[in-house]
Amino acid sequence: MTTIVPVSSRLSASMMHNPLLISSILEHAVRCHGDIEVVSRRCEGDIHRYTYTDAAKRAKQLANALKAHGVVEGARVATLAWNGYRHFEIYYAVSGMGAITHTINPRLFPEQIAYIANHAEDEILFFDLTFLPLVEAVAPKLSSIKTYVLMADKTHMPAAPKLPNLQCYEDFIAGHAAEFDWPALDENSPASLCYTSGTTGNPKGVLYTHRSTVLHTYGANAPDGFGLTSDSVLLPVVPMFHVNAWGTPYMCPAFGCKLVFPGPAMDGASLYQLFEQEGVTLSAGVPTVWLGLLNYVRTNNLRFSTFKETVIGGSACPPAMLREFEEIHGITVVHAWGMTELSPLGTVCRLKRAQKLLSPEAQFAIKVKQGRSVFGVDMKIVGSDGKALPHDGKAFGDLYVRGGWVCAQYYKETESALIDGWFPTGDVATIDTDGFMQITDRSKDVIKSGGEWISSIELENLAMSHPAVMEAAVIGVAHAKWDERPLLLVVLKPDASLTAADLLQFYEGKIAKWWMPDDVVFVAALPHTATGKLLKMKLRDEYREHFSAQ
Amino acid sequence: MTTIVPVSSRLSASMMHNPLLISSILEHAVRCHGDIEVVSRRCEGDIHRYTYTDAAKRAKQLANALKAHGVVEGARVATLAWNGYRHFEIYYAVSGMGAITHTINPRLFPEQIAYIANHAEDEILFFDLTFLPLVEAVAPKLSSIKTYVLMADKTHMPAAPKLPNLQCYEDFIAGHAAEFDWPALDENSPASLCYTSGTTGNPKGVLYTHRSTVLHTYGANAPDGFGLTSDSVLLPVVPMFHVNAWGTPYMCPAFGCKLVFPGPAMDGASLYQLFEQEGVTLSAGVPTVWLGLLNYVRTNNLRFSTFKETVIGGSACPPAMLREFEEIHGITVVHAWGMTELSPLGTVCRLKRAQKLLSPEAQFAIKVKQGRSVFGVDMKIVGSDGKALPHDGKAFGDLYVRGGWVCAQYYKETESALIDGWFPTGDVATIDTDGFMQITDRSKDVIKSGGEWISSIELENLAMSHPAVMEAAVIGVAHAKWDERPLLLVVLKPDASLTAADLLQFYEGKIAKWWMPDDVVFVAALPHTATGKLLKMKLRDEYREHFSAQ
Repeated sequence: MTTIVPVSSRLSASMMHNPLLISSILEHAVRCHGDIEVVSRRCEGDIHRYTYTDAAKRAKQLANALKAHGVVEGARVATLAWNGYRHFEIYYAVSGMGAITHTINPRLFPEQIAYIANHAEDEILFFDLTFLPLVEAVAPKLSSIKTYVLMADKTHMPAAPKLPNLQCYEDFIAGHAAEFDWPALDENSPASLCYTSGTTGNPKGVLYTHRSTVLHTYGANAPDGFGLTSDSVLLPVVPMFHVNAWGTPYMCPAFGCKLVFPGPAMDGASLYQLFEQEGVTLSAGVPTVWLGLLNYVRTNNLRFSTFKETVIGGSACPPAMLREFEEIHGITVVHAWGMTELSPLGTVCRLKRAQKLLSPEAQFAIKVKQGRSVFGVDMKIVGSDGKALPHDGKAFGDLYVRGGWVCAQYYKETESALIDGWFPTGDVATIDTDGFMQITDRSKDVIKSGGEWISSIELENLAMSHPAVMEAAVIGVAHAKWDERPLLLVVLKPDASLTAADLLQFYEGKIAKWWMPDDVVFVAALPHTATGKLLKMKLRDEYREHFSAQ
Repeated sequence: MTTIVPVSSRLSASMMHNPLLISSILEHAVRCHGDIEVVSRRCEGDIHRYTYTDAAKRAKQLANALKAHGVVEGARVATLAWNGYRHFEIYYAVSGMGAITHTINPRLFPEQIAYIANHAEDEILFFDLTFLPLVEAVAPKLSSIKTYVLMADKTHMPAAPKLPNLQCYEDFIAGHAAEFDWPALDENSPASLCYTSGTTGNPKGVLYTHRSTVLHTYGANAPDGFGLTSDSVLLPVVPMFHVNAWGTPYMCPAFGCKLVFPGPAMDGASLYQLFEQEGVTLSAGVPTVWLGLLNYVRTNNLRFSTFKETVIGGSACPPAMLREFEEIHGITVVHAWGMTELSPLGTVCRLKRAQKLLSPEAQFAIKVKQGRSVFGVDMKIVGSDGKALPHDGKAFGDLYVRGGWVCAQYYKETESALIDGWFPTGDVATIDTDGFMQITDRSKDVIKSGGEWISSIELENLAMSHPAVMEAAVIGVAHAKWDERPLLLVVLKPDASLTAADLLQFYEGKIAKWWMPDDVVFVAALPHTATGKLLKMKLRDEYREHFSAQ
């Protein structure tokens, strides 16, 4: 595609130009799904339930309160909160009035939270009861926040508040009118803000617009995406502080789906009770959270009566978990892939008609892939020469994406985040002829040997399939002749023993010969990030001279 | 909503601004659903099958051919054709290159066809073999068409062509490259054109844009809309010359659905054979066409093996047909409502979770309604005082709609088609608390009595439920005291007899007293339009003095 050709104003007048706005989502819900429930487990411990009609009224009260408080269009309003109805009201009140909902991840280090809130110049911070100690601890470092609002009623306010200008949410909105005329914003106005933290440098903000959010709502909820209908009951386990709970708080009211918020109670017993009590049909979350739920259900020999489908993203679903969901519980696992910069949805792994006729094992081999792009997202893979690679399921290269809900420029950055109009994901992937993408590595971890690429993840997975191996890491180390060659680092299981030669022998016939690691180092432990990911950067530093020193 | 507030260019740079383009639909299909079939029954009589990948190649060949032929952006290219693969290629080639696909309805009178083609200033006319005699007859009246292309191969070309510059479709595209770089158009560029004919005045054109078409594709195919997936096989009975076959030629490639085109063979036997042979799961069309299919299936005591759901619009589905589909064949009937000015989809009647628990009769009472608006379309009903009426399922008023795929201004008209930013549909309707809309009358037919409205359709339906009545019409006739009062005109069944008093007696207890027709006139026949609709305008003229003369 080249430069966009503008159309004459005479012709462009033919169809209505209604801006795509977040406020239109909740208004639609009120008109068509006004009686559909939003159920929340509260930090206070009890269950709260009301309807989309009630939610819209309170969102309007909150918008009036914020306006009275001096919040103007474009102002940043922060949250540190679980999935719950007050958080939902903040989403719609803040974005609807033209301000920016800035959801902060409470699991970050306090220093990161302070950096993010100060960088965004947040004016107000809404937070859940759970996070009162965290907020009190970090408050001295917050330079722009003028008002703190505790998302609770008066009975739960601290007796001796340590925070300056601390308000109670229910008092904050009380007395304000439940009528508010949502402004007709430009659809390219910013609506919400999420920061993404890499392994290096400061977190960066992705500033979603009303247009990108509404297009994502349509695209992510296409029938082969989330596919939520007025028949569905969704419990999003993925948090509203993590890429807007994958957009589900927008999809549900737009398509009439009942919404069940788990609040802070993410343990197996609490989740199971809520799934059963509220007739949850569909859920969405990262693999970790399902461990607790599956474990609880297994231990207590329970069954789900309404739960039919779960969307799993964030990281790849372990095959054993996929089998437990599908074979024991008859719950379809739908793999999905996305990132903060993609609002977040890029791909969903739903089998196509012809694929459903394949053998169970062949289907399984597809289900572990990240899936095909939803309509609205384009993908390509690019080799080291910058040229697009074929979509044959074999060639792997840097994954680039493009589309109406993809980040073009990080918040307050002056440079574009794009390369030739495409967003570089930092992942290395294959794409097959059916459009199914599978991530094979992170771009920074792939090993560049003699102009060809070697997947570090594939070599690690093979090593970890050896019965003596507990954990493995493969890194590219500088090599005089081949630029880089793979080095395998291994942690053995307690009391296991293994030689380098035996392990390399184990690889024989499973990989191309030139993929064979040049050396094996046995170590007692491997370094990890705070969220449990391998810190390969540290390993690369440590073993920088490994092959040159040999 | 008031004036749109523009956003600063700095902030609007945050997310990608990819224009919403029709070319992106087919490109997405090639990447993710390249092997999915498009099957067509041809005018030549045989079955043609190929894939979306093949379709895209030929669409690009056609785009190159059109460019070589001098077609530029904004030029109008007309079609007179059935549902088939060549028509599908024209849709994507013409709109994709920036020209305008103008589908003409071959069922119009030749004079109307000439008016429409001349008004649109069409440059090329593509037509099916069936329509050769029609095109030959109307050609002398066509002032702007320079080229005629017969959508067939060389063996089907007439031996002695009567048309100037007649070309063969297969020759027209032969030799052109199957590569074409679709231009990055402004998303508000016009893409296709459909004319709508009222009962008075000349037909008016609705000029769809790329943006309106892509938004309609998302909105109309939401899970509670058409809900097409890569598991679906759609046979659109609604013609591609009638509001773009309700947008299905865009939805199918966008969401990976197999597409089966019936061509000219719309008889029960041909349709049934295609449904069974191609595993059709879903269809869409007006009630009339289903009569033939149901009759064929009933007469031959057949069953459908894959057909699960049918979307019925255009006019209300007769209750008996609805029951035959659902109770005998287990095929869900989904009522939908739209109009040319709405691209066309406004509402879809899919029951909500709570409604599915109601008694069969209560569900049936909902299923006969036109349905709830899809996300992206707003509706309101307005009384004679111009004020919005409640959505209580009882109040009825003029139906207004608003949304990104609603017409704002007819082609080449200088005045807006809108009233205060809303499009007046010309229908009178109720909307209930669940958002379900039901059309009760046409605005011009509703009877305005003493400031209150009386539904002519409801009075007609009641009269026609009397065993002696074959057909009935109710019109508003000028009345000195009440402005208008209802007059009932009745055609009796052969050999039936009935008095006015008996018929009015029959109304007792079924309607409000003030709805009672002031008089009954027995007539031998009622006037109809060419398409079988009651010509009430003619009746109003004829009986204008009825009450003043009394």
